[in-house]
Amino acid sequence: MSSISIIGVGTMARAIGARAVEGGNTVEVIGRDEAKTRDLAASLGGGTTAGTFGATPAGDIVILAVLNAGAVPVVARYGNALAGKVIVDITNPVKADATGLVTPDGMSTAQEIAEAAPASAHVVKAFNTVFGHILAAGHPLDVLFAGDDARAKASVSAFIESLGLRPRDAGGLGMAHWLEGTALLMINLARHGVGNADFALTVSAPGEK
Amino acid sequence: MSSISIIGVGTMARAIGARAVEGGNTVEVIGRDEAKTRDLAASLGGGTTAGTFGATPAGDIVILAVLNAGAVPVVARYGNALAGKVIVDITNPVKADATGLVTPDGMSTAQEIAEAAPASAHVVKAFNTVFGHILAAGHPLDVLFAGDDARAKASVSAFIESLGLRPRDAGGLGMAHWLEGTALLMINLARHGVGNADFALTVSAPGEK
Repeated sequence: MSSISIIGVGTMARAIGARAVEGGNTVEVIGRDEAKTRDLAASLGGGTTAGTFGATPAGDIVILAVLNAGAVPVVARYGNALAGKVIVDITNPVKADATGLVTPDGMSTAQEIAEAAPASAHVVKAFNTVFGHILAAGHPLDVLFAGDDARAKASVSAFIESLGLRPRDAGGLGMAHWLEGTALLMINLARHGVGNADFALTVSAPGEK
Repeated sequence: MSSISIIGVGTMARAIGARAVEGGNTVEVIGRDEAKTRDLAASLGGGTTAGTFGATPAGDIVILAVLNAGAVPVVARYGNALAGKVIVDITNPVKADATGLVTPDGMSTAQEIAEAAPASAHVVKAFNTVFGHILAAGHPLDVLFAGDDARAKASVSAFIESLGLRPRDAGGLGMAHWLEGTALLMINLARHGVGNADFALTVSAPGEK
């Protein structure tokens, strides 16, 4: 099982945190708002602790469950407190009108985070192609991920499995651009009537549940 | 049912053609090689005809099932013979090493085809996120598509349904860039062990078959 810290107290933080606790992981939640952080920790139960924003996270895996615009600033704010950590970027740089991404062509938020993080940290893009409410509903789902460090990816893959989800390796961190584009595509599919956004993207064998 | 012309005699032409015949559509196949074209038409059966490369296609929907590098040249070669047609681009501009796309940032082959086609033609991107061998295997599958013209999209959507497949509207032709990137992502997932490429991308409700 893994030791994880989740920075963020929103929908995705709660959905991942709940499954992480169920999966027997050691969970810390960290928010700028201490009261909300304590509430989330209590609500998740299973020994979940409330960390202090900006202090070295307790977990080996640090999940950035903040708004996309806040992801790079948070990593920069943490600085060396993230040394040696596996940083999981779940955010989506989608323009407000969902016509494109706010990141430059060919770049990704995950790569921007890698540039802002300590050299000893490793960034893995994951969970950004799963809608929060679908994750919260508890189905088995595919979780696509990408990163450059094999050990970091292996630890994230094991964590995903502990959630009852299927890890799907998309390759190096350069693929984060296309994972972020996939989330944009999913939002556009939802806008054009696909399942009232009540769907998951899977890459499973046809007919497999 | 639809009247379709398929330009191309390869794996995707055969897979789409076979399902199109099963679905009761009127099918024409068109290749540069007359013998291969006749063979494919005979093999597909169900009244499939062999068209002449460069002549006005018989179908209202013209499916470009050629290699990506050939797609824009074929449309340019056809010129006004494609006037009023719904052109379906199924090709993928993936670099040989699968690290990116050969199209410029923010562009897509589908949009390049739209620029090369007569103004009265309408381009729809579709089928490029389905592996040919999976399509050939006959499972129910999601077919993502994108285009700017509502009537053209409705006709392609009805054609997809006639194949026993689920049409999934991803929005305007600008989304073709991300559909093409999705195919790149699928190739990288396959390279990293996902199902030995024996998988389909779906956007269905979790648990739905």
